[in-house]
Amino acid sequence: MPSAPYQEINPPQRILLGPGPSNVHPRVQQAMMAPVLGHMDPYFYTVMEDTMSLLRYLFRTKNALTFPISATGSAGMEAGLCNFLEPGDVAVIANNGFFADRMINIASRCGAEIIRLDAEWGRIIEPEAIEAALKSQKKVKLLALVHAETSTGVLQPLTEAAQLAKQHEALFLVDAVTSLGGHEVAVDDWSIDICYSCSQKCIGCPPGLSPITVNQKAMETLKKRSHSVSSYYLDLSLLSKYWIRDGSRAYHHTAPASMFYALHEALVLIADEGLEARIQRHAEHGAALQAGLEAMGLVLHAQPGHRLSTLTTVCIPEGIDDARIRQRLLSDYSMEIGGGLGTLKGKVWRIGLMGYSSSEQNVLLVLSALEKLLADEGYKTETGAGIKAAVQSLRK
Amino acid sequence: MPSAPYQEINPPQRILLGPGPSNVHPRVQQAMMAPVLGHMDPYFYTVMEDTMSLLRYLFRTKNALTFPISATGSAGMEAGLCNFLEPGDVAVIANNGFFADRMINIASRCGAEIIRLDAEWGRIIEPEAIEAALKSQKKVKLLALVHAETSTGVLQPLTEAAQLAKQHEALFLVDAVTSLGGHEVAVDDWSIDICYSCSQKCIGCPPGLSPITVNQKAMETLKKRSHSVSSYYLDLSLLSKYWIRDGSRAYHHTAPASMFYALHEALVLIADEGLEARIQRHAEHGAALQAGLEAMGLVLHAQPGHRLSTLTTVCIPEGIDDARIRQRLLSDYSMEIGGGLGTLKGKVWRIGLMGYSSSEQNVLLVLSALEKLLADEGYKTETGAGIKAAVQSLRK
Repeated sequence: MPSAPYQEINPPQRILLGPGPSNVHPRVQQAMMAPVLGHMDPYFYTVMEDTMSLLRYLFRTKNALTFPISATGSAGMEAGLCNFLEPGDVAVIANNGFFADRMINIASRCGAEIIRLDAEWGRIIEPEAIEAALKSQKKVKLLALVHAETSTGVLQPLTEAAQLAKQHEALFLVDAVTSLGGHEVAVDDWSIDICYSCSQKCIGCPPGLSPITVNQKAMETLKKRSHSVSSYYLDLSLLSKYWIRDGSRAYHHTAPASMFYALHEALVLIADEGLEARIQRHAEHGAALQAGLEAMGLVLHAQPGHRLSTLTTVCIPEGIDDARIRQRLLSDYSMEIGGGLGTLKGKVWRIGLMGYSSSEQNVLLVLSALEKLLADEGYKTETGAGIKAAVQSLRK
Repeated sequence: MPSAPYQEINPPQRILLGPGPSNVHPRVQQAMMAPVLGHMDPYFYTVMEDTMSLLRYLFRTKNALTFPISATGSAGMEAGLCNFLEPGDVAVIANNGFFADRMINIASRCGAEIIRLDAEWGRIIEPEAIEAALKSQKKVKLLALVHAETSTGVLQPLTEAAQLAKQHEALFLVDAVTSLGGHEVAVDDWSIDICYSCSQKCIGCPPGLSPITVNQKAMETLKKRSHSVSSYYLDLSLLSKYWIRDGSRAYHHTAPASMFYALHEALVLIADEGLEARIQRHAEHGAALQAGLEAMGLVLHAQPGHRLSTLTTVCIPEGIDDARIRQRLLSDYSMEIGGGLGTLKGKVWRIGLMGYSSSEQNVLLVLSALEKLLADEGYKTETGAGIKAAVQSLRK
């Protein structure tokens, strides 16, 4: 017998303003109480069909293969890369953040040769750099960009990149982990061939799933592979036989039913709110937070004009203890914000306003809490300045 | 806007007697209502530590690296293989069922050369065959067997195989997807180096996680790889930096908090029941079901003496419509049983009695339902014979 007395799970109720997970709407949480069904149950197929249809709305696509991968966002990234890259392929990949770096890591595990698009962390990749890379002597198979870089808070423009990829006959892969459901992601209009996200950020579902959409052009490429896909679990040809209704549903893996229910409910909430209104909500709260932080004399890390509304990076002022502030946010406010990742560790905080967490009350509370805790550390700012600027921004 | 009116999820309450998922105890379902936490939250770490400790109890191991992979059982299989096999390695793998076949598929995606241990579906792999394969001219790196073959209902003996693997310095990998929590799986006593399972069968949690345990010997092998592991998501070296407490917890992916809560609660229920009592419960109900089916004149598919108590394969009588019976079980009894997989499609039914679903009432109900529906199809059997034999078996 295990020696410890194991108690019921009783986690604190946190205000989740980190890089994700975000808070979950009670209706989404409640959906997980629905009875588990087998993955071949006729009713379960209707849940799958609905989910695909709702995801197409969210991704703004007509792609048949639009479904959640049964694992978290990093697995979506892996699925997006390992199905389309095989040994010897050339990929052009952004190199301006922690998740761009992860894409490079995964692509190199696929045996691909990688041309890196370098930019400082906190800046976008310029179209000129993309064009130069695509024009290199080598035939480029895939261009991969991170739409919303969770480590830097940068929103990467995509339309020119998409045109360049098309022109050079490369597949265009976009990581929309921190944008889908909070920023516009128009897969078809923007000519994105492969796009994935996660469940636990702007979609507002618990972590565990990774929505992905793949167009016909990309699926054709998949058929021409000379090696099998390294991963069985993420093999899109096999997954499509389970997900695409064509008379038969070939068993691939046991679908995580409770997570699917939660995702379905989160997507219904998005449809109820309306995608445009939801994006507007994220924009307003993000702008208010950023106005407030700047009014407190803090410096935003991401390139002006290319800032995410879903996740804000703010530089930690000289002499302020990163860990102590985040620890006190947790203990005094039960509020989570993110620390810096990779080269930004100890240099920035990451404040997420995503999904159900993107609310006026959270903007006001995080500014108020930061003002209080920074003042305790000796950082000087006018009392209430941050909150005031945020409210002014909200009333605009 | 999506055109369909999307309704709340309202799945029927099924009696899940298929190959998994099994029914979920109300306490396990309730655990998913706990608030989602960030994957770096101090409280969340305590949930992780408890879960690892409870899993060690279940796997009967002291292995430090004992944790749930954040994806379903098939991903556990992939993790078990892709971390230890690289191009050019030789693996000896069972070839006597659908999931053995899946292991071969995944191992070949890793670039391994495979020596197949052939046996008829429904029969075990004999130790002599294992010894012959390990004695082949080639240096074998890994021996892989399925403990409980979900497609055939066979329980593979493991102790001799483990000794042979040790003798030939091969790693011993065991798939315990349909046994862990229902049959004895003694990882340390049986000298298993790598063992994985799933959450949704005998553990009684919803699908979505794959518990795995890996000993030090296997982890040493991992360090000596010459190629990086093909999968980032399933890379055990990276995952161990998140899971093993050593001062730092390196972020790898966003842990599916709600699923972890459910698994934790399911494991607490197992500890409360006691592993021995739980295995005994599965044994008694499995035996009663099998006695009942045989008393109805039905033929069990799996080799006598090597039958699972968690999943029973029974041959579909001549002239009986497989799909219609299963359809009527669903519509008249809201009960799911499994059809045959692969070469057994249309030839057997698979009746699971796993976790919370392994109960006297389910044994009686499935026998009663099958008797009624088979009689409607013209199959002749003495009324009540199945139930009577089951009860006699239970009272033994």
